[in-house]
Amino acid sequence: MHPFGKFLEKRLEDLARVAVWNAIEDAGVPPKEIQAAYVANSLSGLVTGQEGVRGQVILRDAGFSGIPIVNVENACASGTTALRCGWMEVASGLHDVVLVLGVEKLFMPRTEDSIRILMADAEVRLMGMGFQFLGWYAMELRKYMAAYGWRKEHFAKVVEKNSFNGSFNPNAQHRKPLSVEQVLGSRLVAEPLTLYMCSPMSDGAAAAVLCSRERAKKYAARPLVEIAAIGMQSGRYADPRASSRPSITTLAAKEAYERAGLGPEDVDVAEVHDAVAPSELYHYEDLGFCEKGGGVALIEAGRTKITGDIPVNTSGGLAARGHPVAATGLAQVAEIVWQLRGEAGLRQVAAPKVGLVENTGGIVEDEAAVATVTLLKR
Amino acid sequence: MHPFGKFLEKRLEDLARVAVWNAIEDAGVPPKEIQAAYVANSLSGLVTGQEGVRGQVILRDAGFSGIPIVNVENACASGTTALRCGWMEVASGLHDVVLVLGVEKLFMPRTEDSIRILMADAEVRLMGMGFQFLGWYAMELRKYMAAYGWRKEHFAKVVEKNSFNGSFNPNAQHRKPLSVEQVLGSRLVAEPLTLYMCSPMSDGAAAAVLCSRERAKKYAARPLVEIAAIGMQSGRYADPRASSRPSITTLAAKEAYERAGLGPEDVDVAEVHDAVAPSELYHYEDLGFCEKGGGVALIEAGRTKITGDIPVNTSGGLAARGHPVAATGLAQVAEIVWQLRGEAGLRQVAAPKVGLVENTGGIVEDEAAVATVTLLKR
Repeated sequence: MHPFGKFLEKRLEDLARVAVWNAIEDAGVPPKEIQAAYVANSLSGLVTGQEGVRGQVILRDAGFSGIPIVNVENACASGTTALRCGWMEVASGLHDVVLVLGVEKLFMPRTEDSIRILMADAEVRLMGMGFQFLGWYAMELRKYMAAYGWRKEHFAKVVEKNSFNGSFNPNAQHRKPLSVEQVLGSRLVAEPLTLYMCSPMSDGAAAAVLCSRERAKKYAARPLVEIAAIGMQSGRYADPRASSRPSITTLAAKEAYERAGLGPEDVDVAEVHDAVAPSELYHYEDLGFCEKGGGVALIEAGRTKITGDIPVNTSGGLAARGHPVAATGLAQVAEIVWQLRGEAGLRQVAAPKVGLVENTGGIVEDEAAVATVTLLKR
Repeated sequence: MHPFGKFLEKRLEDLARVAVWNAIEDAGVPPKEIQAAYVANSLSGLVTGQEGVRGQVILRDAGFSGIPIVNVENACASGTTALRCGWMEVASGLHDVVLVLGVEKLFMPRTEDSIRILMADAEVRLMGMGFQFLGWYAMELRKYMAAYGWRKEHFAKVVEKNSFNGSFNPNAQHRKPLSVEQVLGSRLVAEPLTLYMCSPMSDGAAAAVLCSRERAKKYAARPLVEIAAIGMQSGRYADPRASSRPSITTLAAKEAYERAGLGPEDVDVAEVHDAVAPSELYHYEDLGFCEKGGGVALIEAGRTKITGDIPVNTSGGLAARGHPVAATGLAQVAEIVWQLRGEAGLRQVAAPKVGLVENTGGIVEDEAAVATVTLLKR
């Protein structure tokens, strides 16, 4: 990774170079043996004007050229989409060693430029109703709160947990533990959401080196981590049974579990997409960690803390680690890899064998546009 | 395909819907059996402001949702990059039936908006020297003309051939055959390049349905066409042996030939990337159809006409068929599929068994950013 944060003086290339070389050093793979690359970026066409061949421009700066490079985008799931492409490239037998990179830059020297980007993004998400994303999200949330007894305090508890975890993560954007009171007392964004319940704007990059099982044995200085499966879904829209149907995250999880021959009970540690704090509670259900509406019981009992039986967002999650859109998924993967190897420092959970990464993002009509669920194992 | 041309009243979705359903009808695959999709688009972040989840928005309109959708970009090779991704998805065993789509919209109701897009693109390509792409290209070309005796008339002959072919193609943007005199007499863009030697601005879409060999037998109402191999390369840059090294197109072709166990002598029909007419001559060399500098001899002898021994750009090429950036590669694939099946109408060449598609595009430093070479066979 390149740490997540606000780096006005750095370009996309500067962020990417650090993540790429950290990944290569970590993997113990000679750089010359990298045969192909996938580069995920979501917004730099609007940020920098570099709409085409972003990955070629970014990787040239990191010293990589003369290999197949593919640019991919999938909103908040861009990073894990690159992972899925790299996984298939290796699985198809086309190449044995593939680099995947997610990089995003949202901060700009002039505040109005950053706002322009976010406005451009928001414009796409307006859904023809004049609402911004968070306003719409808050309305949907309030129905759920009424139905299942969720309260603002539960969302604040999610942030309390994640900010505590993030305080131990040298790659996190925010490293100050927040109390429930501080979260509730921060500026109101859209009732019931306060500022600290929303993931921040971030710059950052994360990368991974994938290789075939056979080739991995050659490099393995460290414990190997295997991609057990990746599930992916896009929105379905306009389904008359909309209210009773499973979310796309649920379907992506189902695909991943089935392909891997694993179930929610096998997951020892997870990174989930808390773009807004209540999302973490929704995703507990989606991933099968609890029944519908049961997320608050998990939070209240502390079961998803580092010390709990199903630790979630040991990295600090999007809330504390930050959320540079296309870099997020691969940062989550990095956290799970460190956990599975026992290298997560003060954030380490007890000897995990199976880890999960979940991303859900984008909005088309009234539904998330894309979800990925990745299962990793020792 | 959706025909290429100027369609001010159509959105990306309108172009895509037609191409997708034409491809599905052509393939004879029940739409419900499509399991995943790759959507290539290069410039719509700058054109429409839809920077993220383009494919989800575009395919929803065509009636496709609830499947994995990945957005890919690779400049002029975006369409064949989507093809390569879909090919790997099937080869990896993850899914058996995959839709790939390339769609682009460059024309806008106000001329200044279109110019703004092209300026944004040009800005990226300025290479820090104050040149626009075509100016730089023309300078490089003049060195080559001096070394190998290439003349303006040769480039005009390429356009004469391609515009003749395009006149038989109902999907082509320009269907008027041009004489050498008309090409030479059109407005000068950058000596020696005249307007008709440059591919036009275009709107359009093209799609393909890929499936595993096993599954294809189930659907096969029409002759099957197989992807024998796809080679891909990105620029290498700053190589001290720059002047003597092979182009990235040459390397992509080498990869494709080796993977397919085929050589240039096996190619019966080819679609090559004549973004500017002389490029077709360069690509004859890159693809092994002739020795260095030998492209003009092929053109002079008429060997790459429909009636020649190695017909090139029977569709009309970028010059006549048009060049909606991310749609181009899959339109070339469509032409080769029709040729291999004997369905190319007045453009049909005699019983071809092996066809080739080549795309080279983007500029980073002084080199093309990406090249793909695809080999298809009966």
